[in-house]
Amino acid sequence: MTNQARPRIAIVGTGANGGFYGFMLAQAGEDVHFLCSSDFAHVREHGFRVTRIDAEAEDFNIAQPQVYSDSRDIGPCDLVVIATKTTANAAVPALVEPLLKDATALLSLQNGMGNLEFLRGHFPGRCIVMGLCFICVNRTAPGVFENTLPGGGRVVMGAPTSDGLPMAEALAARFDRAGVSARASESVEEALWRKLCWNIPFNGLAIAAGGITTDVIMQSERLRQLARLLMDDVCAGAAAYGYTIEEAFLQTQFEATARMGAYHPSSLIDYLNGRPVELEAIFEEPLRRGKARDVAMPHLETLCALLRALLQTRDTS
Amino acid sequence: MTNQARPRIAIVGTGANGGFYGFMLAQAGEDVHFLCSSDFAHVREHGFRVTRIDAEAEDFNIAQPQVYSDSRDIGPCDLVVIATKTTANAAVPALVEPLLKDATALLSLQNGMGNLEFLRGHFPGRCIVMGLCFICVNRTAPGVFENTLPGGGRVVMGAPTSDGLPMAEALAARFDRAGVSARASESVEEALWRKLCWNIPFNGLAIAAGGITTDVIMQSERLRQLARLLMDDVCAGAAAYGYTIEEAFLQTQFEATARMGAYHPSSLIDYLNGRPVELEAIFEEPLRRGKARDVAMPHLETLCALLRALLQTRDTS
Repeated sequence: MTNQARPRIAIVGTGANGGFYGFMLAQAGEDVHFLCSSDFAHVREHGFRVTRIDAEAEDFNIAQPQVYSDSRDIGPCDLVVIATKTTANAAVPALVEPLLKDATALLSLQNGMGNLEFLRGHFPGRCIVMGLCFICVNRTAPGVFENTLPGGGRVVMGAPTSDGLPMAEALAARFDRAGVSARASESVEEALWRKLCWNIPFNGLAIAAGGITTDVIMQSERLRQLARLLMDDVCAGAAAYGYTIEEAFLQTQFEATARMGAYHPSSLIDYLNGRPVELEAIFEEPLRRGKARDVAMPHLETLCALLRALLQTRDTS
Repeated sequence: MTNQARPRIAIVGTGANGGFYGFMLAQAGEDVHFLCSSDFAHVREHGFRVTRIDAEAEDFNIAQPQVYSDSRDIGPCDLVVIATKTTANAAVPALVEPLLKDATALLSLQNGMGNLEFLRGHFPGRCIVMGLCFICVNRTAPGVFENTLPGGGRVVMGAPTSDGLPMAEALAARFDRAGVSARASESVEEALWRKLCWNIPFNGLAIAAGGITTDVIMQSERLRQLARLLMDDVCAGAAAYGYTIEEAFLQTQFEATARMGAYHPSSLIDYLNGRPVELEAIFEEPLRRGKARDVAMPHLETLCALLRALLQTRDTS
C-alpha cells in the first residue's frame, strides 16, 4: 500500500473513531470508502460534518462522501480500517472479507485488548497495525462527529512485530499528512496498557459512579483518588509484562482530562443508550492478563464486577 | 433497670429496627413508649402491625401503642433504646436527654461503627449496650414492619466493657422472653466486625450494582465473588484488631442470604427513597479503622468511593 499514490481505503464501522479519522483522510484527498450501517441513508443525503473544539478550527463538511451499506459494493482495497465496536467483532470477518486482495493491510482503531489476537486469528499472515487513538471524539448525530480534545489528539500506530514497523510508520505519516498527529511504536502491547490507564478509570467510573461525565470525576477528590488506584492496577499489570509506565504519564492523563470538560467516554454513551459496552476489551481482558501473571488488580476487579452487574441490571429492567 | 419488674422503656426512632423490637417487647407486656416522627399521626390512629414470613407466624397488631411525637412527653425511663439512623446521630442527644434519670441505661440498635464512641462522648459514665441486630426487617408502610428472615433473626447484646456485661445479659434475657433470640457478648468490637461481613457486601452491592435486591446478588456468580472479596477485606480489618472471623461464619452469611429472597437492605431502601445512606457508619469508618492499622481493603475502598459518588450524583441530579 505504501507505494501507491492514492490507495483505496475502506472504513469499516463509521462510528466516532472510524467516522472522524476517515473524514480527516478523505478531507486530505485520500480515496476513502465508508461502510455505514444505521447512518447510511442519512449520510448519503447529508454527508459528514466534523466539529472541533479549538476556537480557531472551523467546522468541516464532506457533502458527498463515498458511502456504502454493504462492503461487497466497495470491493478490494489497499487498506481496511477496522473501527467497529469490539462488541461487534464477531461480524467483522464477513465485513472485511470482500475488501481484501493479496496485499491489503489492516488497521484496527478499536478499543482495548484482544483485537490483535482476534484479527490475527481470522486473517493469518496479513499485515496488521493497531492504531491506538488518544482523542475525544463523539458521534453526536448521524454523520456528525465532535472532536472535543484541544489539539485533536494523537494516534499511536503500533506494529505487533518488528517487520510490521514500516507499515506502521507509513500509516503514521499518512495520518500526519491528513492533520492527525500520529507516530509509530514498536510495542503495541505497551501502547495498549498505556491507553488503558485512561480508559479503565474514566470509562469505568463514568458508568459506575452514576452516569457522569469526566469533569464530575475530576471535581471529586475521592473519584480522582480511585482513578489513580485503578491506574496503579493497570501499571501493575503492564509491569508484569515488562512495561514500565512512568509517573509523569499518569499525571498527563489527569491534566489532559481536566482540559476535556464534560466529556462522555464512549462506554458511558453506549451504556446510557442501551447498547453493548466494551466490557471485555477494556476491562475484562486486562484483568485476565493481570491474573495470568498473578498480579492483584483489586480495584479493577471490583469495578469489573460492578460494571457487569450494572449492564445486567440495565438489560433486565 | 434489671431489678425492676416493669421498667419504663423508650424507643427513640421507630423505624424498622426500633419499631420491630419495640413492638416485640410491648407485645410481651413490657412498658414501651415509642418516639415517632413522620409516622406519629398514623400510628396513633392505626397502631402497629408486624408481619412475619414464617408460614406458621401470624400477623401481630398493637391497636393503641404508647406513641409520642416529643420525647419530653415521655419523661424519664429506665432503658432508652436508640434505633435512629446513624445519619441522624447529631439529633440523638437532644432526643435522649429528657428520657434520662440517674440509672437509665442506653441500648443502641444502630448500624455500623462509631456509635458507641458517639454515645460515650455524649453520655459519659452511663451504661451503654450495643445491640447488633442480625435480622431482615423493613418498614413497609407507616407503622408496618415486615420481618422476612425465617426464624426472626437474633440480637447480639455487646458490652463495651466487662462491667457492662451484666446489663448486656439482662437485656438479652429480656429480649429472649419477648420472643427475640438474643445473647450477650463480651466483645462488642468483634460483633461489629462480624455484622459488617454482611452489611458491607450486601448493603453496598445492592446500591452499587444498580439498585438490586439480595437475591439478584446471590444469583450472580461475579457478585457473589465480589461479596466474598469484600468480606475478606472486613476480615483483614478485624484481624488487625485481634479478631479472627472463621470461614464457617462467612459461609453462614451466604446461606442465610440465600434464604432471604428478594430482600432490600436498609441502605438500598434509603438510597432509592432519596434519604441519607449510612455510608459513614457502615462503610467509611471500617475503612478508616483498617487504614489506621495499615490494612489494605482495596475492594471496600473502591466500593466506598463509588457509593459516595452515587449519592452525590443522586443528590445533585
